Amino acid sequence: MISKTQIKYLLKLRQKKYRKLHGEFLIEGKKIVQDALHSSFEIKTIWTTPENLTLFEPYSNNILLEEITQQQAEQLSTLKSPEGVFALIKIPSNEIKITEGPVLLLDFIQDPGNLGTIIRTADWFGFKAVICSNNTVDVFNPKTIQAAKGSIFHIPVVYDELLTWMNKHNNFDFFATTLSGKDIKTIDFDVNKTAIVIGNEANGISKEVLNYSDKKITILKKGQAESLNAAIATSICCFCVNG
Amino acid sequence: MISKTQIKYLLKLRQKKYRKLHGEFLIEGKKIVQDALHSSFEIKTIWTTPENLTLFEPYSNNILLEEITQQQAEQLSTLKSPEGVFALIKIPSNEIKITEGPVLLLDFIQDPGNLGTIIRTADWFGFKAVICSNNTVDVFNPKTIQAAKGSIFHIPVVYDELLTWMNKHNNFDFFATTLSGKDIKTIDFDVNKTAIVIGNEANGISKEVLNYSDKKITILKKGQAESLNAAIATSICCFCVNG
Repeated sequence: MISKTQIKYLLKLRQKKYRKLHGEFLIEGKKIVQDALHSSFEIKTIWTTPENLTLFEPYSNNILLEEITQQQAEQLSTLKSPEGVFALIKIPSNEIKITEGPVLLLDFIQDPGNLGTIIRTADWFGFKAVICSNNTVDVFNPKTIQAAKGSIFHIPVVYDELLTWMNKHNNFDFFATTLSGKDIKTIDFDVNKTAIVIGNEANGISKEVLNYSDKKITILKKGQAESLNAAIATSICCFCVNG
Repeated sequence: MISKTQIKYLLKLRQKKYRKLHGEFLIEGKKIVQDALHSSFEIKTIWTTPENLTLFEPYSNNILLEEITQQQAEQLSTLKSPEGVFALIKIPSNEIKITEGPVLLLDFIQDPGNLGTIIRTADWFGFKAVICSNNTVDVFNPKTIQAAKGSIFHIPVVYDELLTWMNKHNNFDFFATTLSGKDIKTIDFDVNKTAIVIGNEANGISKEVLNYSDKKITILKKGQAESLNAAIATSICCFCVNG
């Protein structure tokens, strides 16, 4: 059962300010709810339409499991074909100690889909964390969660001022991706100490972060495109570092 | 000047069936219209709000240049912040002869954003063409054009039955991307003969196309993500072949 007031509340969680205020976010889909169940995240409630109820009954001793109607599922969903499964999750602490690389540093990634794809790719290549500048889009944005395909439950995502983070972790080698650096193919990465810095989709890395970085690296162009998509550039860096 | 009927017509071109019927598509944005002007595509009309008029006046001898209001621009736009520049373009012939690699073969890519990002990346890495299965999403979908950032004017995109195309071009080496092939890092690509086959986002490469391919290749996983996004996997292949 779910009340109208509850539905209203869950819909509000699509906005960052309400997620911050209440310290909770909503996820949607069978697979990702299962990923959450196998993670260290605290699940507060699972809502499901009747046909998926048996799938989640084994967890009902520890987690509140509630039935919803197809119509309510459609109201809650951000997808074209809702699966009828939702979970309300507590936003974990941002205080995660990162001692080892490889890691990604994201300097003002704006597009929620890009952020999700970057997290999924960093997870695939076994990166230890994704460090986001405070002005990077929120990891609990529904589009980011969707694009990350469960990887937000596999790899820590931390928000900080990048310069502060870099200062505190100066044992890392910081590689800034730019249009005029050293060919990435010629770099011999010391994987456990590697931090790749990715800049904003339109404007690249901010000046201060660029200046603090140890080396500039570049993915060489052979054709005519003006630039690479930020998630694409990131994935090629991840592959070069730990592929 | 633009009439209500013309606006209605241009809005219809967002749908594939009308683009096919009339053999035309609409693009939007200063940069991409300039890319089109420097391509072999036939531009039928450019519409612009007054503030961008001088930018396109040098072309007004050969191309119909029309002024529109801010309000009309907003009506026509698919973007949050319209730049007020549009061009109507003739869909070129699909009969393009491809004699040399590297090329990409896309087997049922469904997401328009993925297709655009793939075309942009293939362009960056100097690929000679993108061959799409007939059931792949339309290259002239507004979201595809947007994600491709002008690259649809740099690199030929051809639609065909993939098996037919492979049969006609059997001098190519066809590398199928799968989850259980040879590590892509160990492959020594003969660049001019290389064709990389990319499968559907959810189901991978179709059985017939997979069987016809010469080799299966894989991007090895180091972490926990279940899969890579199709555009990400493609970009890493492009980088390995011609990066």
